[in-house]
This record gives sequence, C-alpha cells and structure tokens, in this order.
Amino acid sequence: MSSRLLDQLTSFGRKVDPVIIQALSRSSNSTFRPALEYHFKVGGGKRMRAALVMLSCAAAGGKLSDALAPAAVVELIHNYSLVMDDIIDHGEVRRGKPTVRAKMGDSVALLVGMFYREIIDDIVDECSSRDRIRRKSVEAMKEIIDGERLDLLFEQAGRVDPYLISNRVLDPDFRMYLDMIGKKTASLFRTAAIIGGYAAKADRKTIENLGEFGWKSGLAFQVMDDVLDVYGQSTGKETAKDVIEHKLGNAAILVALRHLPKAGRSELLSILRSEKVTKTMASKARALAARTPAEYECRTVAMEYLDEAKKHLDILDGSDYKRSLSQLADMVVLRTY
Amino acid sequence: MSSRLLDQLTSFGRKVDPVIIQALSRSSNSTFRPALEYHFKVGGGKRMRAALVMLSCAAAGGKLSDALAPAAVVELIHNYSLVMDDIIDHGEVRRGKPTVRAKMGDSVALLVGMFYREIIDDIVDECSSRDRIRRKSVEAMKEIIDGERLDLLFEQAGRVDPYLISNRVLDPDFRMYLDMIGKKTASLFRTAAIIGGYAAKADRKTIENLGEFGWKSGLAFQVMDDVLDVYGQSTGKETAKDVIEHKLGNAAILVALRHLPKAGRSELLSILRSEKVTKTMASKARALAARTPAEYECRTVAMEYLDEAKKHLDILDGSDYKRSLSQLADMVVLRTY
Repeated sequence: MSSRLLDQLTSFGRKVDPVIIQALSRSSNSTFRPALEYHFKVGGGKRMRAALVMLSCAAAGGKLSDALAPAAVVELIHNYSLVMDDIIDHGEVRRGKPTVRAKMGDSVALLVGMFYREIIDDIVDECSSRDRIRRKSVEAMKEIIDGERLDLLFEQAGRVDPYLISNRVLDPDFRMYLDMIGKKTASLFRTAAIIGGYAAKADRKTIENLGEFGWKSGLAFQVMDDVLDVYGQSTGKETAKDVIEHKLGNAAILVALRHLPKAGRSELLSILRSEKVTKTMASKARALAARTPAEYECRTVAMEYLDEAKKHLDILDGSDYKRSLSQLADMVVLRTY
Repeated sequence: MSSRLLDQLTSFGRKVDPVIIQALSRSSNSTFRPALEYHFKVGGGKRMRAALVMLSCAAAGGKLSDALAPAAVVELIHNYSLVMDDIIDHGEVRRGKPTVRAKMGDSVALLVGMFYREIIDDIVDECSSRDRIRRKSVEAMKEIIDGERLDLLFEQAGRVDPYLISNRVLDPDFRMYLDMIGKKTASLFRTAAIIGGYAAKADRKTIENLGEFGWKSGLAFQVMDDVLDVYGQSTGKETAKDVIEHKLGNAAILVALRHLPKAGRSELLSILRSEKVTKTMASKARALAARTPAEYECRTVAMEYLDEAKKHLDILDGSDYKRSLSQLADMVVLRTY
C-alpha cells in the first residue's frame, strides 16, 4: 500500500482529534487537562476506527461532516479501553511512546479513563442519531469489557488476582478464541461501521451489511495482529508481547499448539505457564511456532474474513468512498507499512 | 436515633438492590456475574443516596415507585466510584468485608467498575425522565472523578505517580477543601435529591431547593466523616485511615493544623509526609489534633450545613415523607448508630 493512500485514509480518522480534545477541555479542570490530553497529543494512533465510521457514512451516501461526532465517539471508546487495558497489563509503551500510566501513574490513568467514559457521553449528545448511537456504544463497551475479561482468563500465569486464577481457562479452543476477539476487537469495528450507517441515515439492510463488514474486518485484523505479535514485524509494541504476557488467547499460538508434536506442545505450554517469561523463552516459543504452519493458516483465516467482509460492501453503490472503505479494510488487516 | 427509625429510612434505599442485581445479570456472562454481584451481595452499605432519591421524590409529591430506577442509578454511581477508589487506594476492607479488589484482584475489579458504568446507562434508560437524569448523572460522575483527583493531590506522600508528585498541593486551605469534598461527595447528594425531584416531576424551584438540601447535607456528611475518621468511632473502616493515607484533605486535620503551635504543626505535617505512616504515628497525629478545638469546630461546621440544608425543605408541603427526608439528613450526618 502506498504511503500516499495510507495518509489519505488515515486523514479521515485524524479529523476527530480536535473534536475529542475540545470535548475533553470543555469540562475539565486546567490541572487535569495535561493528563487527559497526553494520550491524544503524544501522537501515534491511526484512528482506523474513526476512519471506518466516516467512510461507512460517506459510502452509504451520508455526509462526511455528519459522521464526525459519531467517529469521535468510537475513537474515544477505543482509547478509553486502551488506557484501562494498559493499567491492567502494566503496559509501558504504546505507539512507541510511554503509556498514560507509565507517564502519569496508575491512579491518575484510571481517573483519565473514567473521565473519557463521561466525555463519550458528551460527544454522543452532539450526534444527530444520538439515542441509537448511545445504545450501540454501550453495547460495544460491555462487549469490550467482557472480551478483556476473557483475554485475561486465557492467560496461563503471571497474575495474582484470585478471580483470574480460579476461573482461568486452561485450554481455550478456536471457537472460544473467536468469541473472545469478537468481543474484545471486532465488536467495536462492527459498531463503527453501523454508527457510520446511522449517521448516513442508511436503511436497515445497508446497516446490517456495514455491521458484517466491520465485524469480519475486525476479526481479520485481530487474527493478523496476533500473527504479527508472534512472528514479528514492528507494530510499535514489544515482540512476542503476548507470549511474555502468558496469553493463550492468540490465534498463532493456538494453531501452533494444535500442530506441534506432544513434546513441543508441552514445551510451548510450559513457557506460557512460567511465572516469568524471559526474552529467551519468548524466542524459544516463537521458534516452536515457526516449526508449524500456524502463520500460514492464520494469514489464510484472516484473508478469508477480509474477503467475506468486503463482499458485504456489494450492497453499496459504487463511489470513491466505497473504494476507500474497502481499501481501509485492506490497510487495517494487511499492514505492511 | 432509634434503630427502628434507622431501619425504616434505610428500607427505602434497600429497594434498589434487586433492580441493580437484575440489571447486572441481564447483560453479563455467568462467569462474570459473581464478580459483578459480590460488591452488592456481601451486605453492608446503607443505600443512603438511594433513600435520598426516593424520599426526595415522595416528599415532592411523586410516587415512590417512580423513583426506584432513578435511585438505582444514583446508588450504582456511588458503588462504581467506591470500586474504583478502592483500586486507587489499595483498599482492603469496606463495610467490614474485603473489597472487590481484595477478594477478586485489581484487574477484575477494574472491569467490574467499568461494567457498572455501562449498567448505569441501562438503568437510566428505564427512567421516565431519562434525558435529564442522564445529563445530571454524567455531570455528577465528572465531578466525582475530579474530586477524587483533588483528594489524591492533597495527599502528602505515599504515591509514586509522577502526575501526583508534580501536582501535589502542599497547603490546601479550607476553601480548596470544600471544593474538593463538594465534588467528591456533595455533588452526588445534590444529584440524588435533584433526580428525586425529576422523578416527581416537581417544578424548578422545588428541584433547586432539593438540590441545595442535598448539596449541604453532603458537605455536612463529609465533614463529619472526616471528624469520625480522625477522632474515632467505628464506621467499618480503619481508624485514622486518612492519616495513614497521608491525606491533608480532611477537615479535622486542616483545622487542627491551623490551631497547633508551630512545633505541633510541623510534627503533624511530618507524619502526613512520611512515606510510611505507622499506627503509632497515626495515634500521635490523633493526639496532636485532640489538643485543638478541631473536633468541636468541625462538628459545628457540619451542624451548620445540616441546619441550612434542612431549611431548603421549607418549600415542600408537610408530609410524613418530608419528615423522613429531614430525618435522613440527620441520620446521614449524625451517625451515632
């Protein structure tokens, strides 16, 4: 993908930044503001979900400007979940910069996250279809929370939380994995596309198809994200971060486990189940996974979801926006940049 | 106050428990539910804010049943803030029982808090004046978050958060203290009374007076809570917890500091500024405060707010509910039970 096309597509999403910054400023104390704005001002972040709202609206015949506040809602939901996830995962780096919690501390990061949640509601109030957008947003946030919970339950070690230890899932299968990433990731992609449809005042069938497009793009994105985590290629994160974090909720690891002979399987599991996974152990895990066709299979799964996703765009009339929306899905999933 | 009257007043608030439990169950996974319900099922909690909504509604001529969902909203906002505060303060015990985070772990407690926030929105949707209730609720939550932030900034040691260290307030005055407790505590009391007025479809003037009644009762409550923290009397919390937590945002400590001679003032401040405050140091701090008229002065301040609060009820027609509402304020503030 050319960097010009990339710029063009992300430029749609970046339009939400001033909307979010303004909404944050409007009701915050001046000494709170630097903490609230930090996450948005350190740069980075492709605002893919915001672009998805805006392009879904425009491709369904709506005006881009009508999708601006709805796109800001979706992007802020995403960033709300990131700030909270970083607290849970003790994340130090995101988008190549210190996370809010690393920079400011856990306590204030938690308050920043909580404040984002209220500003989501303020921005919903600026949207024309606010009741529908609010219901969908709340639904998405519930799913994200439950998805994060499942992701934690699929971790094999490293946590002291009594709830997580007693409810840990020792052998999630691919169906359970899909349920988890559906909630954690794909639900917000679906919501983004649907909310774009609402902003365009599209008919029910169009909105349903946009939702499926978002949903399947989101599944494809997460499967590919998992592959990149295990097999490398920089995404601004540590490599094999999922292995270091004991996550069994990673497509590549799950598929690799299915292919490995008994000894390799035990070795990979015992790495994930070590209280402290060193970089050497993470490299060993990657080497084990590389002995299997897991990367190939996961890329195939992701490509299939991406193809299915794009078929749902058939219902839309041909337009530059429709083409951009399809390219956005490619970009989100293929990420060779 | 007789325990019969206490039972009677708290019985109004307790009616919200099934509403909250049902709303939590409706959209949660069965393995999440025990974590979500724990905070409500371990017992304890007087549901004072819910009672405030219900009695404000009834005293303003509304039906108790119309206030049930609004009361559940306010009570869930309160409990949302408690779950999050316990994460921030590493709280181990609340209402004489292990906190959600102590029982389940910080990660899942954070997800529980986030989920509560979504369920608040679900219950708002069950309310008849839902738009007004939603706006007031969001406003209250923003204030609570900012109040918690100020409370943290008034702490004199014990935190590693860079934001808190660089923005720490070394000498808050009583006006700043009132601003902090207004946001942290009184705003939800005001919101509770106002929402009760909304549920009764009361006129603007009645709602304004209910709001002032709630606001001033809330200030009185927090000042008294601070006094009880320093001078003892069990409220299900550790004694002198605020001193142990380095809090300068406590009315009794602030007033004591004003009265103490230079040496005593330095000693009290140096206790609050010690990285680790032992029980002996906390006892010493209490002894220092006991040499001043801080307890008397704070109790006087609280009683004045309580009296002013109750004057705002003059606008209501006489009724058993009006009397109960006034008694609720007494109970909340005087707490000799």
